[in-house]
Amino acid sequence: MIDFTLKKQAADSNARLGTLKTEYGTFATPMFMPVGTLANVKTLTSLELKELGSAIILANTYHLWLRPGVDVIFAAGGLHKFMNYQGPILTDSGGYQVFSLAKPKDITEEGVKFKSHIDGQQLFLTPEKAIAIQNKLGADIIMSFDECPPFPVSYDYMNDSVARTLRWAQRGKKVHKNEKQALFGIVQGGEFGKLRKYSAIETVKIGFDGYAIGGVSVGEDKKIMYQMIDDCIDYLPKEKIRYLMGVGEPIDILEAVKRGVDIFDCVLPTRLARHANAFTLKGRINLKNAQYQNDFNVLETGCDCYTCQSGYSKAYIRHLFVCNETLGGRLLTIHNLRFLLRLMTDIQKAIAEDKFLTFYNNFIKNYN
Amino acid sequence: MIDFTLKKQAADSNARLGTLKTEYGTFATPMFMPVGTLANVKTLTSLELKELGSAIILANTYHLWLRPGVDVIFAAGGLHKFMNYQGPILTDSGGYQVFSLAKPKDITEEGVKFKSHIDGQQLFLTPEKAIAIQNKLGADIIMSFDECPPFPVSYDYMNDSVARTLRWAQRGKKVHKNEKQALFGIVQGGEFGKLRKYSAIETVKIGFDGYAIGGVSVGEDKKIMYQMIDDCIDYLPKEKIRYLMGVGEPIDILEAVKRGVDIFDCVLPTRLARHANAFTLKGRINLKNAQYQNDFNVLETGCDCYTCQSGYSKAYIRHLFVCNETLGGRLLTIHNLRFLLRLMTDIQKAIAEDKFLTFYNNFIKNYN
Repeated sequence: MIDFTLKKQAADSNARLGTLKTEYGTFATPMFMPVGTLANVKTLTSLELKELGSAIILANTYHLWLRPGVDVIFAAGGLHKFMNYQGPILTDSGGYQVFSLAKPKDITEEGVKFKSHIDGQQLFLTPEKAIAIQNKLGADIIMSFDECPPFPVSYDYMNDSVARTLRWAQRGKKVHKNEKQALFGIVQGGEFGKLRKYSAIETVKIGFDGYAIGGVSVGEDKKIMYQMIDDCIDYLPKEKIRYLMGVGEPIDILEAVKRGVDIFDCVLPTRLARHANAFTLKGRINLKNAQYQNDFNVLETGCDCYTCQSGYSKAYIRHLFVCNETLGGRLLTIHNLRFLLRLMTDIQKAIAEDKFLTFYNNFIKNYN
Repeated sequence: MIDFTLKKQAADSNARLGTLKTEYGTFATPMFMPVGTLANVKTLTSLELKELGSAIILANTYHLWLRPGVDVIFAAGGLHKFMNYQGPILTDSGGYQVFSLAKPKDITEEGVKFKSHIDGQQLFLTPEKAIAIQNKLGADIIMSFDECPPFPVSYDYMNDSVARTLRWAQRGKKVHKNEKQALFGIVQGGEFGKLRKYSAIETVKIGFDGYAIGGVSVGEDKKIMYQMIDDCIDYLPKEKIRYLMGVGEPIDILEAVKRGVDIFDCVLPTRLARHANAFTLKGRINLKNAQYQNDFNVLETGCDCYTCQSGYSKAYIRHLFVCNETLGGRLLTIHNLRFLLRLMTDIQKAIAEDKFLTFYNNFIKNYN
């Protein structure tokens, strides 16, 4: 079971400093979780994750349910052993992937019928089944099964959906068997402030070990995302950890930390890396750009990641991408994850030193 | 410049123990060279190569000439700096790739006209140009430009080809400018013993820093390969290093070491890895095979590679391949290269202890 301690509440904002203790390790929050969709943070070994300073990773229940199947992972002794990773793991409920990848037509009170995005096989996921699968996978933190409606939907649809997700959360909690695992509830409600508030209050009433805010990545206008956080975060208990799902843009992380969020996950740093994009303090750069052909400098001077420290140049990384060499994506994955993980420890330090807003302003001023 | 010292000639066979000193490091022979086609041993960093015990790597002139182009690498300060690798490098002449990938129709005394396998661009490579490119790339060892005819060709064709390759070798030596780089000659002659002998004697007359045997990978019947070595190796000077090109099967390496070969290169261990094949002491296994779905053992008990030592299971590696996760190929690349590099140090030890033939017999008895 996990143990969250709120160490400090910033004076200049709602930013918080905390500690999360798990069976597989303790880490400070705010923290970012790299995504290991298929029980692997793409291109990296467990050793590299450790060297990067990765504190906790996320794996996807939906993907692992399909491949290799929950029985294989259970037979291996659980997810940690299967993937040879001795750090904390969070599994999502499968809900997000079911709604985004499998695009179900059949959502009932009982659960969701959909087709596998791999072979079209007819599948059925219920709140109970999502918990049962996660119990067998054995992550440190597991998530309630929720509906993630597309954006936008009508108020009436979202109203029904929020009520259904609350009933699903209750059913999931009832069957949660593995006492070693923490179970989180998820706040939904789209861009409707009233529903976000209602969802938060009612989810807290059910009672979970932590609370997530879902369904916030809804397009280009980031103000909507920030508003969604504002609409519900004050109704989440201060002594519990708060998780903003699917957010990994540096500025969005800063905005959410300012509002009181503790943990994040997103495929962004790893996916951008495989598409030749690197984070820098001035913003993203695309290594496929011809301007880097003869640029023999590292991605960012002063960066403490393996890629930059050992001297890999932009020209060389560009060459690897031009030639489809997977080392290119790997070198950028290391850099991008380290960039975000260093950002998180910088944020922690700034909160500890009562300088969060100054840090926030400086970062945003430079980052385009 | 390189310095080869013959340390020991085995009593039980023609196997030899030697030391090759280069500007970027000294290593013992017999040794296997991992192939870094595009200035990258696929999936691996320079640090991993070092940790694997890799002593020297090969890069391909033809591929680097096309991408990123010799000017980029020269501007970077040469191949070592460009690829961020501080160990010895050998570049081939481009000949093999021109003949195998670009399939030229126009071979004249002057050189070879062919089309780029990437964009169809018309290109022209001559012995002088192959040396000039390699001088700019800056590897520790460079190779003469040779013709690699397909197998089989007529005696008359091979006779003409060997004579032309000798004239090309002479022209290449004449223009070789970079005194830091060793230049090797290449023995050709196909399966014609008389031509192999002639090619060896005449190449040695020109005088090179080392001698390669080319064009030996000609199909399933390995006896032809071994015969090709037998036909020429006694005509190569004992005090110079001998390089068998394109050979990486463990048994072929043992057979060639027995005949007096010192160094090898081959894409086999890295290519097999990316196709889910792993070397073991009992032979190759294919991780895509369903039998490994619930096999939670490492690839080979007792193997000292990172993949096996850190506990990655066959079931997990299989899962990575089923899901097209590139970490699978990377974990097997590490294992396969370590397997061959350990084989080389085992061979060195066996020769040093006057037990080469015993080692050879034991290995072959177990390996299918």
